[in-house]
Amino acid sequence: MGEEHTAPERYVFSFGAGVADGSAEMADFLGGKGANLAEMSALGLSVPPGFTLTTEVCRHFSQHRVVPDGVERQVRDAMNRLEETTGRHFGAGHNSLLLSVRSGARASMPGMMDTILNLGLNDSAVEALAEETGDGRFAWDSYRRFIQMYSDTVLRLDLEFFEEIIEEERERLGRDSDAEMTAGDWKAVVTRYLAFVEEELGEPFPQDVETQLRGAIRAVLGSWMNPRAIAFRALHGLQDQDGTAVTIQAMVFGNRDDRSATGVCFTREPNTGVKTLYGEYLPRAQGEDVVSGMRTPLPLSSGQASGHGVDNADRSMQVVFPNVYDELKCVSERLEAHYGDMQDIEFTVESGKLYILQTRTAKRSAGAALRIAVEMAEADLITRNDALLRIDPLSLVSLLHASIDPDAERDHIASGLPAAPGAASGQIVFSPDEAADLAERGKKIILVRTETSPEDIHGMSAAEGILTTRGGTTSHAAVVARGMGKPCVSGAGTLRVDYDAKTLSTMGRTFDEGDTITIDGTTGEVFAGAIAMRKPQLSDDFRTILEWADATRRMKVRTNIDVASDAELARDFGAEGIGLCRTEHMFFGDERILAMRHLVLAETDNDRESALLTLLPSQRRDFVELFEQMAGLPVTIRLLDPPFHEFLPHTEEEMRETADALGVPVEKIEFRAETLRETNPMLGHRGVRVAISYPAIPEMQVRAIFEAAIEAGQRTGRPVKPEIMLPLVGLQREVDFVREIIDRVARDVMKETGQSVEYTVGILIELPRAAVRASLIAQSCDFFSFGTNDLTQTVFGISRDDAAQFLETYRQAGIVEANPFITLDVEGVGELINMACVNGRAVQPELLTGICGEHAGDPKSIEFCEEAGLDYVSCSPFRVPIARLAAAQAALRVKNGAS
Amino acid sequence: MGEEHTAPERYVFSFGAGVADGSAEMADFLGGKGANLAEMSALGLSVPPGFTLTTEVCRHFSQHRVVPDGVERQVRDAMNRLEETTGRHFGAGHNSLLLSVRSGARASMPGMMDTILNLGLNDSAVEALAEETGDGRFAWDSYRRFIQMYSDTVLRLDLEFFEEIIEEERERLGRDSDAEMTAGDWKAVVTRYLAFVEEELGEPFPQDVETQLRGAIRAVLGSWMNPRAIAFRALHGLQDQDGTAVTIQAMVFGNRDDRSATGVCFTREPNTGVKTLYGEYLPRAQGEDVVSGMRTPLPLSSGQASGHGVDNADRSMQVVFPNVYDELKCVSERLEAHYGDMQDIEFTVESGKLYILQTRTAKRSAGAALRIAVEMAEADLITRNDALLRIDPLSLVSLLHASIDPDAERDHIASGLPAAPGAASGQIVFSPDEAADLAERGKKIILVRTETSPEDIHGMSAAEGILTTRGGTTSHAAVVARGMGKPCVSGAGTLRVDYDAKTLSTMGRTFDEGDTITIDGTTGEVFAGAIAMRKPQLSDDFRTILEWADATRRMKVRTNIDVASDAELARDFGAEGIGLCRTEHMFFGDERILAMRHLVLAETDNDRESALLTLLPSQRRDFVELFEQMAGLPVTIRLLDPPFHEFLPHTEEEMRETADALGVPVEKIEFRAETLRETNPMLGHRGVRVAISYPAIPEMQVRAIFEAAIEAGQRTGRPVKPEIMLPLVGLQREVDFVREIIDRVARDVMKETGQSVEYTVGILIELPRAAVRASLIAQSCDFFSFGTNDLTQTVFGISRDDAAQFLETYRQAGIVEANPFITLDVEGVGELINMACVNGRAVQPELLTGICGEHAGDPKSIEFCEEAGLDYVSCSPFRVPIARLAAAQAALRVKNGAS
Repeated sequence: MGEEHTAPERYVFSFGAGVADGSAEMADFLGGKGANLAEMSALGLSVPPGFTLTTEVCRHFSQHRVVPDGVERQVRDAMNRLEETTGRHFGAGHNSLLLSVRSGARASMPGMMDTILNLGLNDSAVEALAEETGDGRFAWDSYRRFIQMYSDTVLRLDLEFFEEIIEEERERLGRDSDAEMTAGDWKAVVTRYLAFVEEELGEPFPQDVETQLRGAIRAVLGSWMNPRAIAFRALHGLQDQDGTAVTIQAMVFGNRDDRSATGVCFTREPNTGVKTLYGEYLPRAQGEDVVSGMRTPLPLSSGQASGHGVDNADRSMQVVFPNVYDELKCVSERLEAHYGDMQDIEFTVESGKLYILQTRTAKRSAGAALRIAVEMAEADLITRNDALLRIDPLSLVSLLHASIDPDAERDHIASGLPAAPGAASGQIVFSPDEAADLAERGKKIILVRTETSPEDIHGMSAAEGILTTRGGTTSHAAVVARGMGKPCVSGAGTLRVDYDAKTLSTMGRTFDEGDTITIDGTTGEVFAGAIAMRKPQLSDDFRTILEWADATRRMKVRTNIDVASDAELARDFGAEGIGLCRTEHMFFGDERILAMRHLVLAETDNDRESALLTLLPSQRRDFVELFEQMAGLPVTIRLLDPPFHEFLPHTEEEMRETADALGVPVEKIEFRAETLRETNPMLGHRGVRVAISYPAIPEMQVRAIFEAAIEAGQRTGRPVKPEIMLPLVGLQREVDFVREIIDRVARDVMKETGQSVEYTVGILIELPRAAVRASLIAQSCDFFSFGTNDLTQTVFGISRDDAAQFLETYRQAGIVEANPFITLDVEGVGELINMACVNGRAVQPELLTGICGEHAGDPKSIEFCEEAGLDYVSCSPFRVPIARLAAAQAALRVKNGAS
Repeated sequence: MGEEHTAPERYVFSFGAGVADGSAEMADFLGGKGANLAEMSALGLSVPPGFTLTTEVCRHFSQHRVVPDGVERQVRDAMNRLEETTGRHFGAGHNSLLLSVRSGARASMPGMMDTILNLGLNDSAVEALAEETGDGRFAWDSYRRFIQMYSDTVLRLDLEFFEEIIEEERERLGRDSDAEMTAGDWKAVVTRYLAFVEEELGEPFPQDVETQLRGAIRAVLGSWMNPRAIAFRALHGLQDQDGTAVTIQAMVFGNRDDRSATGVCFTREPNTGVKTLYGEYLPRAQGEDVVSGMRTPLPLSSGQASGHGVDNADRSMQVVFPNVYDELKCVSERLEAHYGDMQDIEFTVESGKLYILQTRTAKRSAGAALRIAVEMAEADLITRNDALLRIDPLSLVSLLHASIDPDAERDHIASGLPAAPGAASGQIVFSPDEAADLAERGKKIILVRTETSPEDIHGMSAAEGILTTRGGTTSHAAVVARGMGKPCVSGAGTLRVDYDAKTLSTMGRTFDEGDTITIDGTTGEVFAGAIAMRKPQLSDDFRTILEWADATRRMKVRTNIDVASDAELARDFGAEGIGLCRTEHMFFGDERILAMRHLVLAETDNDRESALLTLLPSQRRDFVELFEQMAGLPVTIRLLDPPFHEFLPHTEEEMRETADALGVPVEKIEFRAETLRETNPMLGHRGVRVAISYPAIPEMQVRAIFEAAIEAGQRTGRPVKPEIMLPLVGLQREVDFVREIIDRVARDVMKETGQSVEYTVGILIELPRAAVRASLIAQSCDFFSFGTNDLTQTVFGISRDDAAQFLETYRQAGIVEANPFITLDVEGVGELINMACVNGRAVQPELLTGICGEHAGDPKSIEFCEEAGLDYVSCSPFRVPIARLAAAQAALRVKNGAS
């Protein structure tokens, strides 16, 4: 009603000739491309002039299928300015203004939306262009390209017909390639194009340039909601409501003449980060010729030969267009300095004049990213904080593990889930025992299983990598492999394992035990044969960045380990303590598993105690080794967690072996396995429930912990202060029950040895009830450690072992954005963590809080932990460097957000 | 420090001779017995005078092992008053005051703590007593009883030695029974007792009566913490810190002479509630003679013969002691009127004088309770609200189901869990198919299984009762049986089912298929053979109480059903709608399961749709029947919930049958079963996840619902307003996804039929995440229904199928007080329900809230629902009357609590 009285909204922003209405800060509004064109224009760089329609136009168009009132008038005004700047006229025939119309959203969506070039050509303008340039071939080729693109994106005709017409004409005229086509040839093609369009649509191809422009703008706006763009955004977590900007720009032609060219340049070498003008160009070509790959591009610098053939060094831009090369170098340095980061620049040279079409932050390898960040910070171009924020912590993964040589040939046979990063080649082995045997004899092994279980640990530990056909990225195989730093591909569902035949097969191909395969746990791919590898690269830059991160972060970074021997590696990676030592893995060794099975099969307290007496010395040895290794750093030990049935043998053969070894009838083992069978083992008789049912077990473990703490403390001279953690707690009384045992055994050991040990007792919060009742439970606890794997399972009601089936459907349908087992569900699980922290600290101000689920190695989740004020994150050893950097970034972001 | 200046705390309260320091309201402080003695004394009833030490004394004693300062002096003062009142002297020899010392806590703990009678006797007092009463036998017998009790409770000597001494003396003297013992005989026994005590303790039996009294008080106080008392309290949910009072009272002797007696009387007949003096007495006896069962007691009233033999009617108190009988009748009426409830009175007659020793609210049968409450309210003795509050809702269970005749002989063979109330006899049958066949031929069947699954429904429905050897009170068998109102005993772990041999065996006994057994689902017992039964009793009083309840309660009571035919029964019981219709049970019928299996095995959308087309008409028929039955009352329909694998056949034979029927290879079924297998099915691919994976399924169900709503609405003339409920929701987007389908199908059906249907869409809250994110999810919902079975599983992280093992340990160790699957865990699960309600209503003020888990039939949980302000509870049909009463009680309690 009152709208006509308010100032009309501004939908169009012009740029060019050293001035611009917009700037680089306006990417939300002008898209990345539009904003950077405005910025470069304001910097005085040579940018073809033009204007940008804001994303608001797109939002309005997506909803109402029309552009908002006022847009047409603002476009008209901008076109007038553009005609003035260029001295050309749109639709004028002679001296005609030709345009490109491109989409450009805030985030790059390469190839997803429509682009139209050479707009403004028609039957008369093409003749004038031919005359002005003296190059009829160029003019008619440009016209046919325009008709093709416009017919495709605006008129929605099938491109195939146009390709067919060219094919037919080429054949008729006897031309081997497009390069041989003459002006007359292209003119003949254009004639057939125009006839075809008229026949298909019942009206002629639009000759009115205003109609062309309106149609092109509508088509580009419409392409925002085309299915592949929607799918791309869903896949990359981008929002439909962001909308795209549309940039309309005067055309420049890299294919106009021999002094013309087009290309892409990086301000640094993207694999190493070394400062040099790096990139490629094509003389006499338009942008799409570079992209299409029909012609091989040439190097920019003469020293930059790799991948372009040595003989091409003489054809480098530095040699062929030395002046332009020097100008580009200048521009490149200016842009890098201006943006304070390595740039990826698109340019065109038209008749010897350089135009910059686009600049953006360049993609680079992880190693390069580290070098650039460190170099720039040391040169005071950016702050150390900027340097820290600029590294994607997850990119460090590739530096910590071997990777497949990107140039190596590969024979892809299957894809699974990227369960643990790194790549490895080895012989297929199906049995963990055999894997251990062969590895001892020096063979490189890939352990292949449908899924793994705790008793396969020795085989996994012996293998170079693990491949499973079932299970997700948080399956047993995945979690253990990540802990060991071994590559793992899980859930490769198209592969079929036949244990009896000892074969691994996929569609039509069968591999036998002993055949070599390669797995890439970073991508989830599986290949036949061995492939050349790149070793892990731990550069000085890597160390520098982590040192800066350590000086910046608030949260401590600890590590999760299974056996004492993991601790050394974790300390090398910078772990400041153990946040989770899973004691049950100590029971899967060859001799120990027998004592453990004896325990599980025990029918009387006496029987149980004799089994525990056997286990005590080995537990104590484990803890001594661990405490010595950690030399006074904090160590959190989780009491026995898994349900009893996990310790029983599964196959008939193993049952028989165990029966023989323990001198019991095999039926007894079968019967016990049947009694222990659970419908939902995740929610079963495990965790602190086992400790309460069989108090002799925590008694043994706690005795081992205290005896070891005293022994290790005496040897290293650094007192050990164990943190004893109870798993799967839901009730305060559970804590009180076990705490009473811990305190009693501690008193006993201290009395027996005459030594005193400080210790704390805390819980793993894995159940919603523990979070909800935190204010009570905290009264009995010294620390809370969030076991976010299980907490996610219980809060969501999703078993991670069974989730693969529907979580993928959920992701595709946009119901979840990220796998909640990888990135913490801040809204649900996070809410309970916050509740537990706030309520727990209210009654226990000294409460130590941490997280030890898989999420502790995920940067987004680490940011949540910083916000929640946790004291530490604890992740698998190979994730420690990532967590150190991510914790620093989180500290910076939270500080910035708060200030 | 300053204590001596404050008024000393009062630890001792006297009563007797028509006055009292305390009253009935002080039970927390004086114990039930002490408080009622004070009250009766104040009423002017004939109560032996005495005084009571408060529970505070016990609390202090339990902690410090001494009585508080001031107690000894207050006891001395009270003794002085007592000597005055009785005109006797403690420790005086002649005219000696004799005492009883008894414990008495707030709640009755029969036989758990110590009692000492005849205290104050010693070597001189006994002689004086003999002289005064002229009855040496009575005096010496009283002395030896005192020595015995005192030695046991205070001196901690083994009673066996004393029994031995009597035996030896009786033999030596040639007496057949105690009745033949003379004064001299008892004196000889006393001499040996005293010698024995001195020999054992090295000092003589205390002759000083003050020492006796102090010792007795200490012993009674100490008995509060004896192991059996602690165990009793743990079992009955009583608190250790409550403490017991100690009542010291002048002795009266029911065994003094022929005009003496002792007995117990009820103010009404406890089985029927009919007003009459009912009870039994023993002439010339002390209280413990009645309890010990050595002598058969006689009836009080001459008309009251049952159980006492007809020939005993002439020996009734009414005949033998007519004056005392009349006085007792008077007292009885006065006490019932005074307390406003039926009383259970202990009395003693000493030489013709009646003394009342104790009165308390009498235990009664459920039927009697109803009659008494209604009669008293109609006589304006109590209010209707009092009447409602006086009935234990759970006691109604026994009136709704058949029960075993309490007088029948029984041959107990095993005990399981009381999974569904009622009793039934029938032949053992192991296969559901056979059960259905035999039932059709008129046989009465008990279906015996290790555990049941949804495809056993037809067999369960045909059986009289169900017996399983695995599973808890919320197992499939239990839940379905309760829904059907059939008795069920679950988890009878000592029984062993052998399906191949068709036997049911227990230690040493084996039953074959066809043998008759009886199960009692109210107690969990299993018996061999058939046993006489009592039919359910739905009296007018029952109906009256429920009418009053309906007028009082705020919450609606709905019911949970599986098939339309359950609805009629539920309406008879007063259900005001369906809160949960589990649609999957409709798919287990003989023909439908095949179509359902076809659906599960379908590999393409086409295949799936053809299976769904087969299911549509039968779903529609089910819903038409249901809507007609409910005639416009609200009906909540849950969309398909179970995981697909529940519909597949389990045994090889069934797999083969299914394969034949569907014309697919059996391997396909096996393969599909393997693919669908889940590690934790509770947390798997079920609930709304199935609807999102296969949208054609909700489309079919929703179409059936709307077509049926229109058809039934037209037939009954009452418009149907379906409430469609999505199970296992955790995310708002899940609701949006399925709601879009519902809205679309609803529009389609309305367009096709030209009819309009109002409907609502809501969710089952079974996941912590749904509760935590309620403020978002409520934006997409019309109602929340709390599925507290699953919510308890996820909040606690306990699978109810696997919980039996450790929950019992937990209960015994006092870690949980009640099974959280039976009584709602208010602190954990309840907290999340409150959170969901508060946050949900904040964004959606019209949000309807209810509960449809098993807890909806549990009175304690219903009280929580009232406090949380839920709109309705929905329970299985047989629980509806219980819920109606419990909801009324909850409304009254919350109102009283709030006022």
